[in-house]
Amino acid sequence: MRSTARRLAAPVLITAVVLVLAAAPRVAADEGMWLLDQIPKLDQAKLKAEGLELTPQQIWNPADGSGLASAVVWLGGCTASFVSPDGLIVTNHHCAFPAAQYNSTPENNLIASGFLAVDRDHELPSPGSHAYVLEGFADVTQRVLEAVPTGADDTARFKAVEGAVKRIVKSCEAGGDLRCRVASMFGGLSYVLYRQLDLRDVRLVHIPAEGIGAFGGDIDNWMWPRHDGDYAFLRAYVGPDGKPADYSKDNVPYRPKRYLRISDRGVARESLTLLLGYPGRTMRYRTSYAVQQAEEVRYPENIRLLGEAIHVLELQSKKSPAAAIKNASAIKYMNNGMKNNQGMIDGLRSSHLLESKRRDEAELAKWIESDPARAQRFGHVLPEIASVHEEEAATARRDLVLGFMYRTSRLLSAANTLLKISEQRAKPDLEREPGYMERDLPRRRHRLMRMQRSLDVASDRAVLRLMLLEASRLPEDQRIQPLDALVFKGDSDPATEVDAFLDKLYAGTRLQDEDFRMSLFEASRADVVGSSDSMIELALALEPLRKANRQREEKIEGALSRLRPLYVQALHEYRGGLMYPDANSTIRFNYGTVRGYRPRDAVRYFWMTSLRGVLEKDTGVSPFNSPKALLKAARTTEPSPYLDNTIKDVPVDFLATLDSTGGNSGSPVMNGAGELVGLLFDGNYESMASDWRFDPVLTRSIMVDIRYVFWNLDRVYHADRLIREMGDPFRTLGGRDGVTK
Amino acid sequence: MRSTARRLAAPVLITAVVLVLAAAPRVAADEGMWLLDQIPKLDQAKLKAEGLELTPQQIWNPADGSGLASAVVWLGGCTASFVSPDGLIVTNHHCAFPAAQYNSTPENNLIASGFLAVDRDHELPSPGSHAYVLEGFADVTQRVLEAVPTGADDTARFKAVEGAVKRIVKSCEAGGDLRCRVASMFGGLSYVLYRQLDLRDVRLVHIPAEGIGAFGGDIDNWMWPRHDGDYAFLRAYVGPDGKPADYSKDNVPYRPKRYLRISDRGVARESLTLLLGYPGRTMRYRTSYAVQQAEEVRYPENIRLLGEAIHVLELQSKKSPAAAIKNASAIKYMNNGMKNNQGMIDGLRSSHLLESKRRDEAELAKWIESDPARAQRFGHVLPEIASVHEEEAATARRDLVLGFMYRTSRLLSAANTLLKISEQRAKPDLEREPGYMERDLPRRRHRLMRMQRSLDVASDRAVLRLMLLEASRLPEDQRIQPLDALVFKGDSDPATEVDAFLDKLYAGTRLQDEDFRMSLFEASRADVVGSSDSMIELALALEPLRKANRQREEKIEGALSRLRPLYVQALHEYRGGLMYPDANSTIRFNYGTVRGYRPRDAVRYFWMTSLRGVLEKDTGVSPFNSPKALLKAARTTEPSPYLDNTIKDVPVDFLATLDSTGGNSGSPVMNGAGELVGLLFDGNYESMASDWRFDPVLTRSIMVDIRYVFWNLDRVYHADRLIREMGDPFRTLGGRDGVTK
Repeated sequence: MRSTARRLAAPVLITAVVLVLAAAPRVAADEGMWLLDQIPKLDQAKLKAEGLELTPQQIWNPADGSGLASAVVWLGGCTASFVSPDGLIVTNHHCAFPAAQYNSTPENNLIASGFLAVDRDHELPSPGSHAYVLEGFADVTQRVLEAVPTGADDTARFKAVEGAVKRIVKSCEAGGDLRCRVASMFGGLSYVLYRQLDLRDVRLVHIPAEGIGAFGGDIDNWMWPRHDGDYAFLRAYVGPDGKPADYSKDNVPYRPKRYLRISDRGVARESLTLLLGYPGRTMRYRTSYAVQQAEEVRYPENIRLLGEAIHVLELQSKKSPAAAIKNASAIKYMNNGMKNNQGMIDGLRSSHLLESKRRDEAELAKWIESDPARAQRFGHVLPEIASVHEEEAATARRDLVLGFMYRTSRLLSAANTLLKISEQRAKPDLEREPGYMERDLPRRRHRLMRMQRSLDVASDRAVLRLMLLEASRLPEDQRIQPLDALVFKGDSDPATEVDAFLDKLYAGTRLQDEDFRMSLFEASRADVVGSSDSMIELALALEPLRKANRQREEKIEGALSRLRPLYVQALHEYRGGLMYPDANSTIRFNYGTVRGYRPRDAVRYFWMTSLRGVLEKDTGVSPFNSPKALLKAARTTEPSPYLDNTIKDVPVDFLATLDSTGGNSGSPVMNGAGELVGLLFDGNYESMASDWRFDPVLTRSIMVDIRYVFWNLDRVYHADRLIREMGDPFRTLGGRDGVTK
Repeated sequence: MRSTARRLAAPVLITAVVLVLAAAPRVAADEGMWLLDQIPKLDQAKLKAEGLELTPQQIWNPADGSGLASAVVWLGGCTASFVSPDGLIVTNHHCAFPAAQYNSTPENNLIASGFLAVDRDHELPSPGSHAYVLEGFADVTQRVLEAVPTGADDTARFKAVEGAVKRIVKSCEAGGDLRCRVASMFGGLSYVLYRQLDLRDVRLVHIPAEGIGAFGGDIDNWMWPRHDGDYAFLRAYVGPDGKPADYSKDNVPYRPKRYLRISDRGVARESLTLLLGYPGRTMRYRTSYAVQQAEEVRYPENIRLLGEAIHVLELQSKKSPAAAIKNASAIKYMNNGMKNNQGMIDGLRSSHLLESKRRDEAELAKWIESDPARAQRFGHVLPEIASVHEEEAATARRDLVLGFMYRTSRLLSAANTLLKISEQRAKPDLEREPGYMERDLPRRRHRLMRMQRSLDVASDRAVLRLMLLEASRLPEDQRIQPLDALVFKGDSDPATEVDAFLDKLYAGTRLQDEDFRMSLFEASRADVVGSSDSMIELALALEPLRKANRQREEKIEGALSRLRPLYVQALHEYRGGLMYPDANSTIRFNYGTVRGYRPRDAVRYFWMTSLRGVLEKDTGVSPFNSPKALLKAARTTEPSPYLDNTIKDVPVDFLATLDSTGGNSGSPVMNGAGELVGLLFDGNYESMASDWRFDPVLTRSIMVDIRYVFWNLDRVYHADRLIREMGDPFRTLGGRDGVTK
């Protein structure tokens, strides 16, 4: 399961010249999440030899914003692509999940049973869903760095960069149809402004039943072999004037500049695949200090706290079916997080990344010291980064527990958001914190309303109780002072104190009441503070610590935005070659090879799974509950244009060495001619630690084969309308001339 | 983990002629556990083409009892083989476990740390361990069947066969050095008398540390890929006169007729392997009624009861370290049983054996009915077998719970044994029940003493409590009447009644006292009954039901000994071809091919594992705790005669399509020239249901590669003495001329 919340733009800066990173290519095979303007710098001859039939301009042409990349869509957390001239979008099942959830009722659960709109009039609106289409991007490093005053300290540096970024974004979005973002590359070596068309009427066209689109569920999540038909179709609509608009019956399908053609040729072992998408976050240029903190403290503690929180929620879920429904997605999300963190630890350990980073850093330090000019430029960088990490580590346990309180208690989180909004709204827009500007408020409001669906007050209390008990066990030098003042007075044992405190807290709050909660959304800071709601009071009591933490974070980020670019610069001078920046939810181009792997001694994974495998796994019980229509179709042995010659069966999922991460979910995967052959939906278990370092031997991305998507459309759903709209690629409806308007 | 308690000889009979089963060969590849006298009837040309370099007489020569099979040793539950002229025996680690356990103390735990005798004087005695060497066998069908009076009913038939078998065995064993056994083939179509030399001074020579010999433990048990160095060495000793003798310092190494040569060539993909061993029990000629009963009732109920018993024992083990030690082997044994039964169910279900048996039986019935003479001979067979199974099924739940009471409570089992011995000893030897004759008493005594090591009274009570509660929930028509009279009087709820009963039961027994218990071993029935021990009284109360059950069982066995041979006969006439009898702990010859397999869609298992894989799995924590000496040796990259060319590493375990089951543990696996290439120690998970039907696609036996054994002897244990004794096959000590006396 690969999706990620959209990551906020990181702050940044430094003096180095970006162009230096665009030297001669020197990259490990298939590694690299390339910026679109790096594509021409890749080794075209090698790519051609591997099967690339496109020029860089056919992938992305900066002159007119055309090329394959203009068919790629960012859904916020997921990637998708246009596959028809009428704005039809294909993405993953789990990326269309919110749209299906929104349109579901207990009587008509679209998630369980799936959905296929019989015609365009029946395509279902999904307020809150957006599709962002790349219009273009530009380097704004100069504009950002100019804002930093000479001699600024780290905090001032942070503020200056943040202010510049906000101003650039605001002016970019002034027209109203665009969503803009300044992304920092290499931790602040350069800044790039991305302009995306913001399509906000996105409708659900087709989602297969959960027993197809989430076949294998949590059990198979991150695993290979996989048999997941993880696809869904959406459509972007615009106003009759062709401009982005809120949902209206009068809206018309959006006509994209470009849409992808469907390949009818399938994929073959060792063949070239191309990937365009929005990977969320990687940490490949982090130092050993960051690795150590993650491997030894953050991931293990996360796993422990998530495990305990899941346990508590499951107990609550057993008590009432209503609680079970409300807690389901949180439990699923936490389980995914635990599995991810465990995979990270396993991967970091088995790859001995910490040791090798230390070795590399020692070598780099030696190289830096070997030349006085270099020592002058870079000598301070690694020691300073180390001391920044040390500063963070000093209160890591406290901050983790504090963070978990807000992550797990929806009521405390709502109280905090309401306080913050009332505070920030009083300021001029450009002076607010990112995430609390006018552009962010509709999304905030939407979330505060939507939380009703997943709020079970008893569960909320149970997890907050767990975190308070955690807080009671924090060491002397990492106490959460406001809680010591409010809760842990030492009158009795901590559990008794916590229970007494929670009795009052939950008796004195009304935030579970949607009307009350939303009334505070519009209220002034004085009114929110004066509401005398006990949960608001708790949030208020914790606010000074949160603010102090944020100030420290700004100082640290300011320092890192000064140090990281130097570190990357030093690395680059030391190693040479073309470097790609860490993933940061900006669009990237990758290429890779269709290939299986050997997960452990004597085990080989074939690169493709088959419909037979679906039948093998099917138990009739979720998550291995194929719909009857699928079972019937699978057992029919008609000749079929979807068969793969290698396996003599309908292919389901396949592997490639593509370098991807969360956010790549739903990304189009194309053959050398740029035709769609699959949709990326996951990485293998062994790939998780690739967020830290790409291991070409074990890292694989998992795609649903486009032939399986069409087999489902044709044989299970009889979705002739969609097949025809996509040009009838397998000629099951009478040939390619069937394209409709 | 493949070992089995030795199975008692089954009773039997009928009129059919054995020779009819020796027609032209027609067998699925690699299936078949052939009797030694069937070897000449196998397709020699095909075997030669596949790589067999031996004549049937070189495998077993009935004229003088020579050939490879004379180097094969039965350990009772396991197989082994001679590998030196001085009686050196190689078998599995888990087969030498009892000998290591016997010689262990808390201060010197040979199981954990391993053991290597520095010289012959330090080889460790292991009272109770026997090595049986095949002397010869003969068909005794005529002698057995003659004993059955004309017109005998099923019970009389049973008694007559049992009596004849006892007489034949007694006269065979009269000399004193032989252990004899009459085995029924095809459920009674023929009877074969096996004569084995009974070597009763067997000593422990070398057992590797648990972190080698049981590497992977319960987690890897039944699994592939495997990295288990499952080997150990024993030595058989005899009196100075060369005859079997009890342990004495004056004994000398036994000099076997034949010992196996060690191959230095390794095994290759698709190469021929030979297997000689003592498979315990298969059920391939059972009908659909037996499959149904096993799949739907016996295995699931077993799993449930074992699971609950394990749970109870684990709770007890948590309470005291002493209990933990005493319960460890029972828990391990029960876990193995659960995993086995689950594998059986999985395999039976996924192979749809029940449906296909039913289909086959319907076809057979049709064929039988199509000819009046055939209908006359065989028409009654399937219906009668069905009604026998129905009779058994009527009280299946009651009998299962009853059986579990004795399986789980050692004290109740001891009480029952003491009662039974005192009763049977009063009879002339030939009139006693099998298992209670003079020849059996030393083993009985040994077990009654040895039980002290695994007896924790609180745990004994806890599991008996569990089973009594089970008994309380039995349906009206399957009640255990004596318990209803003694325990479930309906005065209060069952749990209270059980606890009150157990309070008295455990207060009133002294059977946990070894001296008291053993005093009853010699006592008369009157003295045992009159001991007024409460546990004896419970066993006495249950005795009538147990006896009634035994009588019913005798009648059923009598009927089956009449019906099964007819069923097999009919099958044979219908199908034609050469047939092998079900495994019954008699020596068998198999051949198979070195080959990996595909356990599920997109997963391929390679046929060989490597030392790299041991390092991959090693965690330092049991059961993945390789000794330091192994880790050090594994990381040394010296040139090595043990390397396999395919994997460029030391091979560890390998797979072949050999048809095996419990009892085959430790069996020698040989190449086409009869040289030892590995020791069979397990089957893969998918092979479990092969006890019911052999599936050549998925069934694999797992061997430890003899090269890994020698790598350990050489690089980890520096066991030059043993290497030299086996002829220095890898020439690490200076060549083949190093053979010692």
